[in-house]
This record gives sequence, C-alpha cells and structure tokens, in this order.
Amino acid sequence: MGRGVAHKLIESHLVEGEMVPGQPIALSVDQTLTQDATGTLVMQELEALGLDRTRAEVSVQYVDHNLLQADEKNAEDHEFLQSAAQRYGLWYSKPGNGVSHPTHMQRFGVPGKTMVGSDSHTCAAGSLGMLAVGVGGLEVAMAIAGRPLRVRAPQIWGVRLTGELPEWTSAKDVILEMLRRHSTKGGLNRIIEYHGPGVDTLSAMDRHVIANMGAELGATTTVFPADEAVRDFLRAEDREDDFVEVLADPDAEYDVTDEIDLSSIEPLIAMPSAPDKVVPVREAAGAEVNQVVVGSSANPGLRDFAIVAAMVKGRQTNSAVSFDVNPSSRQIFADLTKMGATFDLIGAGARIHQAGCMGCIGMGQAPAVGSNSLRTFPRNFPGRSGTKEDSVWLCSPETAAASALTGVITDPRDLAEKLDMPYPRVELPERSSVNTRMLVAPPPAEEAKHVELVKGPNISALPDFPPLPDRIEAPVLLKVGDDVSTDEISPAGAAALPFRSNVPKLAEFTFTRIDEDYPRRARELADGPGHFVVGAENYGQGSSREHAAITPRYLGLRAVITKSIARIHWQNLANFGVLALEFADPADYDSIEAGDVLVLEDLTRTLPAHSEVTVRNETKGEEYRLRHRLSTAQVEAVLAGGQIPLLAREME
Amino acid sequence: MGRGVAHKLIESHLVEGEMVPGQPIALSVDQTLTQDATGTLVMQELEALGLDRTRAEVSVQYVDHNLLQADEKNAEDHEFLQSAAQRYGLWYSKPGNGVSHPTHMQRFGVPGKTMVGSDSHTCAAGSLGMLAVGVGGLEVAMAIAGRPLRVRAPQIWGVRLTGELPEWTSAKDVILEMLRRHSTKGGLNRIIEYHGPGVDTLSAMDRHVIANMGAELGATTTVFPADEAVRDFLRAEDREDDFVEVLADPDAEYDVTDEIDLSSIEPLIAMPSAPDKVVPVREAAGAEVNQVVVGSSANPGLRDFAIVAAMVKGRQTNSAVSFDVNPSSRQIFADLTKMGATFDLIGAGARIHQAGCMGCIGMGQAPAVGSNSLRTFPRNFPGRSGTKEDSVWLCSPETAAASALTGVITDPRDLAEKLDMPYPRVELPERSSVNTRMLVAPPPAEEAKHVELVKGPNISALPDFPPLPDRIEAPVLLKVGDDVSTDEISPAGAAALPFRSNVPKLAEFTFTRIDEDYPRRARELADGPGHFVVGAENYGQGSSREHAAITPRYLGLRAVITKSIARIHWQNLANFGVLALEFADPADYDSIEAGDVLVLEDLTRTLPAHSEVTVRNETKGEEYRLRHRLSTAQVEAVLAGGQIPLLAREME
Repeated sequence: MGRGVAHKLIESHLVEGEMVPGQPIALSVDQTLTQDATGTLVMQELEALGLDRTRAEVSVQYVDHNLLQADEKNAEDHEFLQSAAQRYGLWYSKPGNGVSHPTHMQRFGVPGKTMVGSDSHTCAAGSLGMLAVGVGGLEVAMAIAGRPLRVRAPQIWGVRLTGELPEWTSAKDVILEMLRRHSTKGGLNRIIEYHGPGVDTLSAMDRHVIANMGAELGATTTVFPADEAVRDFLRAEDREDDFVEVLADPDAEYDVTDEIDLSSIEPLIAMPSAPDKVVPVREAAGAEVNQVVVGSSANPGLRDFAIVAAMVKGRQTNSAVSFDVNPSSRQIFADLTKMGATFDLIGAGARIHQAGCMGCIGMGQAPAVGSNSLRTFPRNFPGRSGTKEDSVWLCSPETAAASALTGVITDPRDLAEKLDMPYPRVELPERSSVNTRMLVAPPPAEEAKHVELVKGPNISALPDFPPLPDRIEAPVLLKVGDDVSTDEISPAGAAALPFRSNVPKLAEFTFTRIDEDYPRRARELADGPGHFVVGAENYGQGSSREHAAITPRYLGLRAVITKSIARIHWQNLANFGVLALEFADPADYDSIEAGDVLVLEDLTRTLPAHSEVTVRNETKGEEYRLRHRLSTAQVEAVLAGGQIPLLAREME
Repeated sequence: MGRGVAHKLIESHLVEGEMVPGQPIALSVDQTLTQDATGTLVMQELEALGLDRTRAEVSVQYVDHNLLQADEKNAEDHEFLQSAAQRYGLWYSKPGNGVSHPTHMQRFGVPGKTMVGSDSHTCAAGSLGMLAVGVGGLEVAMAIAGRPLRVRAPQIWGVRLTGELPEWTSAKDVILEMLRRHSTKGGLNRIIEYHGPGVDTLSAMDRHVIANMGAELGATTTVFPADEAVRDFLRAEDREDDFVEVLADPDAEYDVTDEIDLSSIEPLIAMPSAPDKVVPVREAAGAEVNQVVVGSSANPGLRDFAIVAAMVKGRQTNSAVSFDVNPSSRQIFADLTKMGATFDLIGAGARIHQAGCMGCIGMGQAPAVGSNSLRTFPRNFPGRSGTKEDSVWLCSPETAAASALTGVITDPRDLAEKLDMPYPRVELPERSSVNTRMLVAPPPAEEAKHVELVKGPNISALPDFPPLPDRIEAPVLLKVGDDVSTDEISPAGAAALPFRSNVPKLAEFTFTRIDEDYPRRARELADGPGHFVVGAENYGQGSSREHAAITPRYLGLRAVITKSIARIHWQNLANFGVLALEFADPADYDSIEAGDVLVLEDLTRTLPAHSEVTVRNETKGEEYRLRHRLSTAQVEAVLAGGQIPLLAREME
C-alpha cells in the first residue's frame, strides 16, 4: 500500500508504538512553538522542571497575543519571556514581529520536520509538509525537555482536490466548505491530508489558510505535500536550502476520503457564532456591516492583504464601517508597503494595526453590541471578540473587502456590476523582505546559564496541586451544552489575558461568560469536596490554552463528565490532574442536573485497572457508567495531581 | 503702540469688554474641536440644551483617544458620536483618521480665526495664526450653540526667537527649553506669542510642536504669525485659498518679554514625571531604555517621523527596546509610506500603531514598572502611561531615535561618533496626500433633523446636580500638594476612558491614583454634608477634561480650597457648580489637615456681593480668608448647581 505524506512524517518520527489508528504512539519532536499567552506558563514549567537548555532543533517563543499594554502587566510578561528565551536557548520573536504561525513558516519551518506548539493553530505549519500539532503548554515544555509527543495514532483523512478556484474565491472558501460539510467535530482524531491535482494550484500560503483552520474542524493536524510550491516559497524566503521534498506515493491510501472540486467553490461565510455555520455569501447578502477586520493566522499571507488593497485602491470604504487591517507579520507588512499596497489601504480608510493577533484573540477591536463584524479570522465563538453579545462573521479577504466598500454583506462576484470592478490580478514580489535581525537569537549555552529570569510583580509561580482523592463526593457546579470552547472556560480578551502568568488572578475569570458566579461558588468548595462540571459533545474545543484546565482545577474542579471532549483539552486536563470522563450512554447526560451530588469511589484502585468507572448520583439515586481513555502513564499523572510532580521527580 | 498677532486676533473677535489684562472679555468663536474622550459629554450637553445645529463656521468631532476597543464600550461611543455629529451638523473624523490637532491643522485650520476645543492641546492651532483655546466641554457646547467665549483678558508674553536651530535639535527642544526656564506654571493667564527672525526658520508644523506644548506651560494659548511658512503649509494641503496673512506690527509691544537664541539650543529631555523637569540629554545619557514611542500631537509632523525613519534606516533598534511608532494622522501615515519611510521604520523593528493618541493618553503601550520609556509626547505625569510606578521621559524625535538604536539615553549628536551617522537631511514632498473623503461631512440641515442619536447601553445621561447649599459643613476628605493634574483627579487610561460617557461609573476612578478609598468615602457623604478637597499650587493642571469636575461633584464635592488653580479646571468647576476658592494667605494651607471639618455660611448672600469669604475650621477652631474669582454670571451658575440648568432655561 502506498503511503501518504502524513504516514511518512509519522513513520520517520515514530519512537514508540505502531501506526494503527487509536493505538498510543510516541513521536520525536524537532521544533517547538510557544506564544506569549500560553508561553509564560511553559517558561514557568521549564523553571519548575529545572531544565537547562532546549533539546529541540529549533524552539521559538513568539509574542503576538498580549500587545495592547493597557497597564504594566503585558510589558512585564514580555520582559519575562525574553529573559526565559535567553535562559533556555529559545529564539525570541519580539512583540510586533508578527503572529507566530506565518512568522514561523517564513523563518523556521522545514518540510519533513515535526513540531508541537502551545497554540491550537500550530497545525498551520502543515502547509510546508510538516507534522505540526497544537498541544497544551506542558507538552511543549516536555518536548523542549527532549520528550517525545505521546498521542493515539489518528486516522488519516485524504481529501482529494481537483480543478482550480474561480475568480473572487480563495483558500478561505475551501476551508469554509470543509466546515460546511463536516462541522467543528468532523476532524476529531484525524489528520487531514490534502492531495490530488488541485493542490498544485494552491501556493504554500494558500495551504496555510486551509491547514490553519483544520483546528476548527477539530483535526489533530493537517498536512500538505512539500512540493515545488513549497520550494518556491522557501526560495522567496532565502531558505531554499531548507527544502526537502515530501510527496505522497501515487497509490497512497487513506483511512477516510473526501473530494472537493475547487472549480465549484463559491464565496462562503460563517454566520455568528460558530465557524461551521457556513452559508453562501449570497444567502447573507445585504445585512448592514459596521466593522471589517482583515488579518490573523487564518488569512496571513501577502496575497490576502494585497488582494484587499487592490480591491479598495482608489475607492473609499463605507462611512459606517470601521475597516481594520492587522498585518500578520512585520515582514509581510514590509512587503505590502514596498509594493504600494499599504498606501492604497490607508487611502481607502484602513486603520492599520501593529502586526499580531489583535482582535482575533479579543485583544482590542471589539465591536458594538449587535453590530455585524466581518473578519478573515478563524474563529467567531460567542464573546471572543471582547463584546458579550457580538455578531461576528468569518469570510475570505475578497468578501471582507467587498463588504467594507459597500457597507453591507456582499458577494465579491457582485462587485463587477455594483462598482464596475474587474477581478484584480495581484503581482507578488519574487523575494520577500527578509530581515533576520528582528528575531533575538539565544546566546551560547555557557552564557545562557547566567541569564536571570526577569519576574515582575504579576509573574506568579505555578500552584502546587495535591493528588486526586480516592473518593470524590461533590456537587455538579455547572452543566453546559455542546461545543463549549476553551474561550468560554477561560476567556481571552483584554481584561483576562494580562493575567495569563498569574493563575490565582486568572481563575476569577473562569466560566464567567457562562455563569458569572461560578468562581465564587467554586472557591467556597475548593478546600472541601471540590466540584464536578458536566458537559455535552465536543467539550473544550478551540484554543489550546491549558489555563482552561488549570484555572478550574485551581478552583477545585475534580472531574469533568461529558459526552465527548476535544483532544487538546482532554490532554490538558490529564496533565493537570483533572479526571476527564465520558458517558458510556450519552443519554445519561439528560439525567444529571446542576446541583446534583455525585460520588466516585475507590479511584486509586479502579482507574489503573479499568477503562470504565461508575458514578453514583446521590441526589437522583441513579448510577451511570463512564469511560476514561487515559493511558497508564496518564492515570499515574492524574492520581499524582498532574504531570509536574512526576516530571520534576524524573528530571532530578 | 504696535500690536502683536494675539492682540489683533482678540481685537477682531471682541464682542464684550476691553483688552486689559485681568478684565473679563467675550470673544466670538469661529471653529470648535471636540475629541471622543470629552466629546461624548459635549454631545450629551447639546442634547440637554436642545440645540438644533452648530452655529460655528466649522465644528469637528474627532475620535482619537478611545481606539483600543477592549470591549463594546468604545465602539458604542463611536457610533453615538457619529450619529450626534450628523444630528448637530458637525464634521466627523472617524477612529483611526488621526489625532485632532494635526488633522485639524491640515484640513480645517484657517489663519485669523478663533477656535475653542475640549482638549487642552487645542492651542496647537496657534501655529497657523489662530487664537485657539482649550476649554471644558460645556464651553465648547456653548460655542457650538453660538455663545462667545468668556475669559479674563490674559497678558501677552512676547518671546523673541533669533538664530537657527543646530543640527540634531528641533522644535521640541525649544519648548523643552521654555519649560526648563519657566516651569509648568510660567504661562498661567498668559498668551505666548513667538516673534522675531528665528520664527522664519521654523515650518508651520515645527510651530505646532511649540504651540501644542504651550499647554504644559499653563498658558491660555500660544500664537505664531500667519506668514509665508503658513502659506506654504496650506499650499501643500491644497488649501492656499484659506491663507490670510496675520503679522505682528514691526513695533509690536508685549506685556512680558523673553528671548531665545535658537542657535544655542541643545538636545533636552524632561525627566520623570513632570514636563518641566528638563535637563540636557547629556546629563541623563547612559540610562537603560526599554521603550521608545514616537508620535502624539506634540511631535505630529511628517518631518518628525521622517527624521526618525532616516536615522534608523538600514539599522536595527536595540533588542531590549520596544520601538513604537504612532502615526499622528492617516494623511501623514500615507505621506510617510509614499516616501518610503514606513518601510524603513518597519525594517528597523518598529511596531507601527493605528493613527491616534494611543500611549499619550494611556491607551495602551504601558511600560513595565520602573522601565525607562522615552516618548516624543507632551506629558509624563505620574501614572498617565497606564503604569502606576512608571518612568516616562519626554524628548525630541532625534533623541528618541538615537536612544532606540543604542538602548540607552543618547544625545543624538553623539551618534556621529557612536554609529558613524552623519546628520540626515530629510526631503519632504511638496504636496501632501490629501484625501478629503476620509472625513464624514454633516448632512444638510433638513436631513440632519431626522438623524436619531445612537445610544448604546454605556451612554448615560448627564446627572442632574442640585443647587449649592447656603451653608456647607463638611470634612476635608483629601488634602493634596502642588501640581495635581486632572489625570490624577479623573484618570485616563484603558480602564477608565471607556466610561467617559458614563459619569456614575467613571466616578469610581476619581482620585484613585492618590487615594484608592476616596470614591467610597466620598459616596458615603454624598447625600449628606458632602466634602471639601484642599489643594496647593496649580491644582487641576493638564488635560481639559471636565470629568475632573463632574465626577468629584457627582461624589459630593462642594468646594475646592487651593493656593492656586489651573485655568481650565477652574472654569470647569464653576460650570458644574463646585465652588473654587483660593487662600488669601497661602500659609493657611499648612493649618488644615485631612479630616478637619470646615464650615462656609451665608453663601447665597456673600458670593454675589464679595470676592472674599471666610471659612471656619471647626476642628482646629481657626478661620481663614478665601477668595473666589468668579464673575457675576459664574456665581449665578455655581449657586444654581452649574451652567446646564441656567442654559437650558435660556435656550427654551
């Protein structure tokens, strides 16, 4: 049987186990990526583990989330991260250098390599033929410490692309089509591999768009081949020497298959407030728009900004629209400026912001309540924009620009008639404005040893967590529905994000988007029985932030019981000693109510021996069977109160 | 006797009184300027007054302060302001169009005209030969309603400039020299008029730098002649038709005089945390720098950014420095981009932010505690940066760029030796990138009448304030020292600014930089006796925000007793019904302590009849003589609880 790209990447890094879907495997890790919102914890973990220097080939610490600096806390985080990067041998990408994913692709990504990153969109590096997986911070810390990545081998989902995209559509419409077909749960426990003749028609940066939002499909990661398009990309970045060809065998077989004819794609849009509520733009056309934001790791490429600039050139965006442009990296901003596109954007009324995630992570750019905001971002979970009752739509750069010009949701194909606008052809430069001096290199090991960590008053230490009790008798403090995201568990946004390096303070934001009173009620039980949370399908989807495990844990969460649970969050819960359980019979979900007292007993003996446990509902006088999918090592960690105490012991 | 520019401007707009220093006069107002942080209240005041349409020749509502949009409140303010501008016949400058002062100068400023603005740096328009005065929002509302500006005629302070600035110095060093000589109190009750041959060597935008920071000298305003340099400026803006020559008579005489030989100026810097703690840069050289910010209304011109770009071109800023660039207007950003300077700034590591005030008003860019931040801004009051224990320095663009490159405070003259850098000559374009479509014009009057105000949930109504009691017996809740600024009374910054249109909520921030407990203690007394605040010299300096009068008033402040009080704040207190009193004998300041109970009696009879009143200190058993400088009309307003009830009655 021929092997695909994903199969080859796994095989070349397999250090334990066998490539059988569902079986535990361990993969060696070549590169690591951290950003600031999750990275401060990773650096605190490296400190707790007593690590000397990264053992990965390349480790990079980016600062792209907390850029507003409303008070001293952001700047203190930046100084801490810079000192920690120097101390542990990481590259440091300064605030304003850009979003981690496109910056990493431009400066560090290498075909054929593996990477883990403490950001759910780490998978974007699959555009270069890398196997890149978003994980919790602790697993990145472990990879930095030289440990392999442990996962269950996923299924490989081959998506064959044929044809070529029509005018006015682009890669974003392809991934929106995938979300329309398969929903945010479609990719669970799968690697998506794009193949077929249509792949040749997509540039490496187009592939980034599709790979990046594989996270929204719930996929473990996404891969593309490392072919001539990747060689072209690396050549433009002055890194042709880093090119390695990684192609699927012509007769490659896949566990699951699908096919998209690119020539049939039309402009699509995700309605508020989920990335998979996708409809054709024409179905939503005409709704008034007050904000259009272009940028983020979902549409980060020079082309994505250049086509917007070409569309608005010499025109003025609608007077009721705030037209916000977030360059995704300093280098792309430099290229955009050199080619004249920045001038065109300013002339059309753009607010051009510093390079970074910005509004995509709720760091500014919050719209007014109920106002429609169109964004080229990957996510529109409720409230993620910073506005509680927001109305955020996800679309392509073409649809965004068309709507900014008209002030209503507009299919870009209709501009020909509305504004007499032909489809603009964009000429991109052959070489990028490469400037490697913008990244701070780590010092040699001898020098690095003497670097002191700079810890401002807002940098806390990691809390110590006690072992799991043998018996838990505690109430269900919260019962939630399907698709609760880590944004709803531990919100991002300008108010909460500055506390990402301060667990006790950040804990005060836990679940407050769902229940403002949760932190208070949880705290009251924290030193006593603790509490349960009950969830439904796809619990913990979205961002990889391990804070969504740590802060409820800090507030006394002992176990989560759900119908199903998203991959990264499941792992994060295990890492920090929270028991993650799934209903054997999903119908039992309906039997439990908030306030019910549940009892789990004899855990120390049961968990290592059985994949099933029974929980008793004292209030209702019922019992439910639950499953855990923890490996032996994970059970050990959960019983010990998390990975940190175990690892620190090992490192000694 | 020959007349200077200031004298001519006053004479041509005098509608009441005589041009004798200290005498009350009234001036007709041609233009008005409001920004968003003060403008939401102005619009609420227009609504309370029942105005139909502005009666000024030009009224412009800018949005330059609240640009971060950490949640929905900023965007709601923007929508409210846009609708109010449409309703009342104002131009609307959208968020991201730029800082009001340079934008107004470029698009609306006309020599020979008068202007009032609800921003203390409104005086910057003096660079075009305008008489422009920063006042409280209510006085702008009155000017919009067609009322003249009432002030006491100031002294005219003629500052004769000779010679020419040496290389590596610029206009900022001139105004820093003025602050070094005369302190933040030097300009009180004065108009500064620059004249002499040195004026010819300064461009209109250089003069903006000097006129803008006249606010820091405490001056009523600053004027320059409208000469060939102003004609050149207006020509570059496609507005040569707006040019009117306004020159001083050759034998003009001034009430006070000073002289600066420009050729003797050297690079200067204001140390933390006051604009008048000025020393030569060489005296501070070598101190480590972690942030350099270029921008704001104090250094807004294309030249000021272009010289920075020329200095850093092809070089890299220090790895420990965050190098932040805030374009002051969209037009200047467009010009900067067209001339290639934006590309050079990005290449040197700049974080380029949207056009606006940004860090100058504590809206982002807060430094870490204790880190030195060098800024080309006008102000460095403690905590204004958003960081409580900040360390902010004020300097020229040349000193800022030099320090960004080296990572330590650096006299730019030393770069020749340090970096082998000759003084860069900057070529500016002859024509600006004028784009008038970026400003939203008001609709015709008939259409405007039907515009509805868009009021989001955060837009409150103005509170009603009751009349002043005839007898006040209340404690001194707070006693403060010299130079307390309106920033310390009602802070700006990312946390407080979003509540600028919500008085009850904003009141919770009152005085908290000095005493975190003030709002709580004040609230307890608000419905009872109320309270006093005792201040020393120059109380209420800085920003023009009337919130610094309204929020303590809302919390029960009845009277302020000080040694001296800054002009705009004094007027704002009168406008909102707070009695402002000054010690006849400043030594009495030392006799009062916080907690003392003071008694003022028989106010209804005494205030109109006498400029002196007596206050009894019940706690100490002492009496002090106090003076008020209120006009008859102002006494009437204070007794009535403020101007609004009086004005609303009149408008009916």
